[in-house]
Amino acid sequence: MKLQSTLIRLQQHLAAENHSLCLIEDPVDLLYLTGVQLSAGALYVSQKDAYLFVDGRYVEIAKQKSVIPAFLHSEKALESFIDMVKATTLAFDSAKTSYDRYEALKNFAKKQTLTLVPCSNLLKSIRAIKNGEELEKMRQSAALLWRGFMHLQSYIRVGISERELALIFEFYCRKEGAEKLAFEPIIAFGVHSALPHHRAGEALLKPGEHVLVDIGVVLNHYHSDMTRVLFPPGVDSFFNDKYLLVQEAAHAALRLCKPGVAIKELDLAARAVFQRENMETYFIHSLGHGIGLETHEFPLIKHTGKDKDFCLKAGMVITIEPGLYFEGKGGLRYEDTIIITENGYDNLYPQ
Amino acid sequence: MKLQSTLIRLQQHLAAENHSLCLIEDPVDLLYLTGVQLSAGALYVSQKDAYLFVDGRYVEIAKQKSVIPAFLHSEKALESFIDMVKATTLAFDSAKTSYDRYEALKNFAKKQTLTLVPCSNLLKSIRAIKNGEELEKMRQSAALLWRGFMHLQSYIRVGISERELALIFEFYCRKEGAEKLAFEPIIAFGVHSALPHHRAGEALLKPGEHVLVDIGVVLNHYHSDMTRVLFPPGVDSFFNDKYLLVQEAAHAALRLCKPGVAIKELDLAARAVFQRENMETYFIHSLGHGIGLETHEFPLIKHTGKDKDFCLKAGMVITIEPGLYFEGKGGLRYEDTIIITENGYDNLYPQ
Repeated sequence: MKLQSTLIRLQQHLAAENHSLCLIEDPVDLLYLTGVQLSAGALYVSQKDAYLFVDGRYVEIAKQKSVIPAFLHSEKALESFIDMVKATTLAFDSAKTSYDRYEALKNFAKKQTLTLVPCSNLLKSIRAIKNGEELEKMRQSAALLWRGFMHLQSYIRVGISERELALIFEFYCRKEGAEKLAFEPIIAFGVHSALPHHRAGEALLKPGEHVLVDIGVVLNHYHSDMTRVLFPPGVDSFFNDKYLLVQEAAHAALRLCKPGVAIKELDLAARAVFQRENMETYFIHSLGHGIGLETHEFPLIKHTGKDKDFCLKAGMVITIEPGLYFEGKGGLRYEDTIIITENGYDNLYPQ
Repeated sequence: MKLQSTLIRLQQHLAAENHSLCLIEDPVDLLYLTGVQLSAGALYVSQKDAYLFVDGRYVEIAKQKSVIPAFLHSEKALESFIDMVKATTLAFDSAKTSYDRYEALKNFAKKQTLTLVPCSNLLKSIRAIKNGEELEKMRQSAALLWRGFMHLQSYIRVGISERELALIFEFYCRKEGAEKLAFEPIIAFGVHSALPHHRAGEALLKPGEHVLVDIGVVLNHYHSDMTRVLFPPGVDSFFNDKYLLVQEAAHAALRLCKPGVAIKELDLAARAVFQRENMETYFIHSLGHGIGLETHEFPLIKHTGKDKDFCLKAGMVITIEPGLYFEGKGGLRYEDTIIITENGYDNLYPQ
């Protein structure tokens, strides 16, 4: 039912954009629309119909499990479908289609007298709005992450390595049902936290070092993402003070979160807090991102760039993650993931 | 040193193909050439020079660790480099470049009066030949896989689930240093083994079921891949017999492996064994694939298709994995990974 509703939304989008047919080949988009995990497949969606074509490896499973009718790929079956729906244009995802594949599509379109229409990230605005079933899965994924975080926290002590903490988190979450981690854990001790994309390494925790933990899991295909900084005894109060400032910036953005607010406003609100303290230059990345079947989805939460004027809508799930990074000294980041509700937002993590 | 040798081979390739400049953006290709793991970056290689451009996230790490000079990306720095090397053509990897990125490159090339040249899988023949350091890493990855397989095997008993066995294998290998698994383990009990791409699920091992185990790990970035079928007491002798036939097919192909032999000959030799028993229709996939920094690399070992006339060369690493699949009953597959040597091959797994 959930999957049918996503297909209907895509078909409405096609009608609104005046595309008679679109082609979906990205594995995550295929999972979203068909409910089946395929490493390869071609889903053709018209304004009223949809057909999934797969190769021999997937035909059995697709016939059993896809909510969209599935067939063994053949040129002939595809041509019949195109005839049947009287297609004149074929929209393809230009952000996810390789140049080689485009060349092949061009030949095919010519043969079928179809006009090819490049559409960048075709499903982005559809996937950005999660339905009830998806939101429930996002909540479960976040709840598992939080339990894993509590578990990890109980192991923090001088002498443990970043890598050990990362494995403790992963093994816990995997045993509790996570398919995998959403990304390689960023567990950064002391000065390592100055690099936003540090990976957990062999470093051992020394007295006086703070611990940045940026983690995520995948449960029932849905990703979670959260960052906290932990302060074992003896950490310089500089970091504690700056962490409070980072949290203040996060809350300045969170406070604005409700349908109708432009993306850029969130980033500007967080930045205003840093500006007040002459700290803006230490905030070196965007404020957040959409999240769902992938860790990084549309929109990018930033006061510049192509998504800046997009307005929040109920059902969106985004991260808010300001940070401050002091080269050679250390960094701080605070990240929540929230659901935009009719009147405001729901935070998936305890404060 | 290893990395410089790969860059030199790419530059010789550019000279041979008459490209004055090429652009590498695929993260695995970037790791191969620079030695640094980057989620994004642009490496421009001319016949004599090479420059890596990265964004703010990676500039510190790239400057520290890349064997190729690294710079913060700027239009100006890139233009100076293009001027300096007097480039007239720009080759890009058309298999790994999106249509959107191609459009951006087209505009850029126009401004710089460069001719864009699409090259499908630009590095494939270079990455296919592993040097000594890479071969040593492939051996280590395979050795770890084998230890994990021995560990997994000791847990096989009636009542265990496919998923439990998969986790036992993964946790063992991760604790022993694997970065991750090469792919989701295929652990298939009884009838499940009839689907070549079954994933480990909740099924419990029943008396009389055989166990297909297709596993791989990633160690020091290099992938391993192996399949064996295990026969707990009570399995129908049909499967044991057919497994012997599959092994015979594997050995028919392995026997041919040495420099100069065309890819198609291997597949044809394996197929001939199945044909003799009127079993060829139950072998429903290709015979194998190249392997290295990715599980599936060039070439595809198949008697049809675009790689069929490519000849084996010393330093190539490929899998040989014939199988037979009986719908509704069960399947069998036997897979080794081998290094092509000057006179024959080295098998990375015990027989």
